Amino acid sequence: MYIPTYHDIKKAHKRIQNHIVTTPLLRQTQLDEELHSRIFLKLESVQKTGSFKLRGAMNKLLCIKEQLDKRHVTPSSVSIVACSSGNHAQAIAYASTVLGFSATIVMPHDAPTIKIEKTRAYGAEIVLYDRLTEIREDIAKEICQKKQGIFVHPFDDPDVIAGQGTAGLEIVADIKTMHATIDCVIVPASGGGLASGISIAIKSCYPQADIYVVEPEGYDSMAISIEQQAITSLAPSHMSICDALMAKTSGELPYTINRQYASKFATVDDEAIKNAVKKAFYDLKLVIEPGGGAALACLLSSSLKEKYTNIVILISGGNIDSRLLYEIVG
Amino acid sequence: MYIPTYHDIKKAHKRIQNHIVTTPLLRQTQLDEELHSRIFLKLESVQKTGSFKLRGAMNKLLCIKEQLDKRHVTPSSVSIVACSSGNHAQAIAYASTVLGFSATIVMPHDAPTIKIEKTRAYGAEIVLYDRLTEIREDIAKEICQKKQGIFVHPFDDPDVIAGQGTAGLEIVADIKTMHATIDCVIVPASGGGLASGISIAIKSCYPQADIYVVEPEGYDSMAISIEQQAITSLAPSHMSICDALMAKTSGELPYTINRQYASKFATVDDEAIKNAVKKAFYDLKLVIEPGGGAALACLLSSSLKEKYTNIVILISGGNIDSRLLYEIVG
Repeated sequence: MYIPTYHDIKKAHKRIQNHIVTTPLLRQTQLDEELHSRIFLKLESVQKTGSFKLRGAMNKLLCIKEQLDKRHVTPSSVSIVACSSGNHAQAIAYASTVLGFSATIVMPHDAPTIKIEKTRAYGAEIVLYDRLTEIREDIAKEICQKKQGIFVHPFDDPDVIAGQGTAGLEIVADIKTMHATIDCVIVPASGGGLASGISIAIKSCYPQADIYVVEPEGYDSMAISIEQQAITSLAPSHMSICDALMAKTSGELPYTINRQYASKFATVDDEAIKNAVKKAFYDLKLVIEPGGGAALACLLSSSLKEKYTNIVILISGGNIDSRLLYEIVG
Repeated sequence: MYIPTYHDIKKAHKRIQNHIVTTPLLRQTQLDEELHSRIFLKLESVQKTGSFKLRGAMNKLLCIKEQLDKRHVTPSSVSIVACSSGNHAQAIAYASTVLGFSATIVMPHDAPTIKIEKTRAYGAEIVLYDRLTEIREDIAKEICQKKQGIFVHPFDDPDVIAGQGTAGLEIVADIKTMHATIDCVIVPASGGGLASGISIAIKSCYPQADIYVVEPEGYDSMAISIEQQAITSLAPSHMSICDALMAKTSGELPYTINRQYASKFATVDDEAIKNAVKKAFYDLKLVIEPGGGAALACLLSSSLKEKYTNIVILISGGNIDSRLLYEIVG
């Protein structure tokens, strides 16, 4: 198991920077006035494909392409296979098209329409499965064998994690430009890829900063695994509004990285998420998806804002169906 | 008639910078790939109060406060009076509360609910009027006399225009940091305050850049006034979806400034506006109001993207009712 380093993240950034959006670190100071803190919002919702996932996907696919180039294999002869509730799907589909791969994605049939449609529009083939009765990894493996494809894991991969970490590099660069500092970073987690990459990047520059990993209530597999000192799978009895954060098992690599960096944990319920999505709409004029608002939900509903002064929030994605947004914002 | 200078805008920026959001100049390069241009989106939608209007309102109120301070008059004894379809209203209400003035705003009864509610929430008293049968300036004048208040015009005021121009200063600073350049700026207009401020700021640094002033179809009072070489009032026979851009007469100062800077003009219809709001929702994850999307609508529907390479778009506001957004994005 190779754990990516700060240096790997810097290499990843160099590799992907012409393919991604350098997203803003927004200081919407009206929020500061309300919360009596200094809040920095990293807007991965405005990233290409609508979430941070493009960073990891693009880094991984560029790494694969470098290997293939050495063997004089053209990407067009290679199938990329992935499974995803929708954001990794879009990222893999988009990156594959840009780099010339073909892509097949295994997606739950109840994924948001916007995610399924966009994944298809980016040129990927989609295989739908039932979240409750089928195991997506098994389906993906079968496709991989049939197509002799390359499987790209959504989080348990050092190149993917290094890619996600580039969001952390950009945060550090902007914080330095603003002559500011970081006391705390709040980041949503499903498998834990973003949280891992962010932890490595931020802790390398601000070792005293605390990293809060936020999971939906009932889907806090990372927090429970760390507490029990072993990767623990959950069997949640309810759905979460955060369609992007419903991993039942954390990744091995993210688990190890979160242990190493002594991450702290928090959970948010659907109500807190809805409030965050609503706040983003009314006060920040940002379209954010439920999972993308988990860190904001945590900030608004917890006492972290009283504990820390300089708080970075990852707004990790914006792919929400308009009907759900309308239902939430009323 | 005093025409504000580049120096006035720099002074305004110094005056207001701790009270406003330095908004991002977003390069969402997926848009570039689609349009085969380099697009820079100035996100005034994420400005405090949800539009650029705070810049002008804050500069004006700080100027008034400086004058009052000299006379040892406290702001709390002074009423600020304004008329506005909603964005200038919120800006004046918010700035008044921050600086300690009381505020009374004359608003059309059919203004978006979000704009009326927020103006009230910021602490202003609201007087509603009928857009079709009443003249808002007359009502405001009456209130001014009764309350011995100070009227703040939404656009025909050098301090307000200098304030709006600070968005242009920020654009120039970011363009320089990005080692980029500007060939063309597209900016929405109602009375023309933002377009004027932007023209002064941008043309002072990039004299070769073309400024496109975008008005809704039927509400192109600035274009017609410039063409006829005299300020011309319109009597539009239809409403526009752009509730913020329905001025029937351009300001004298904006008219003079637009003449001086040889601005170019364009109009957009409701359909183009709806497409822009939809595009912002789906692809940029931004909540923008109809008027705030006029420049984006112009970019998407016109041939400007073929004519220019480096194009700056003002996204001027984000105050849209959720129901209208849902109707538009479907």
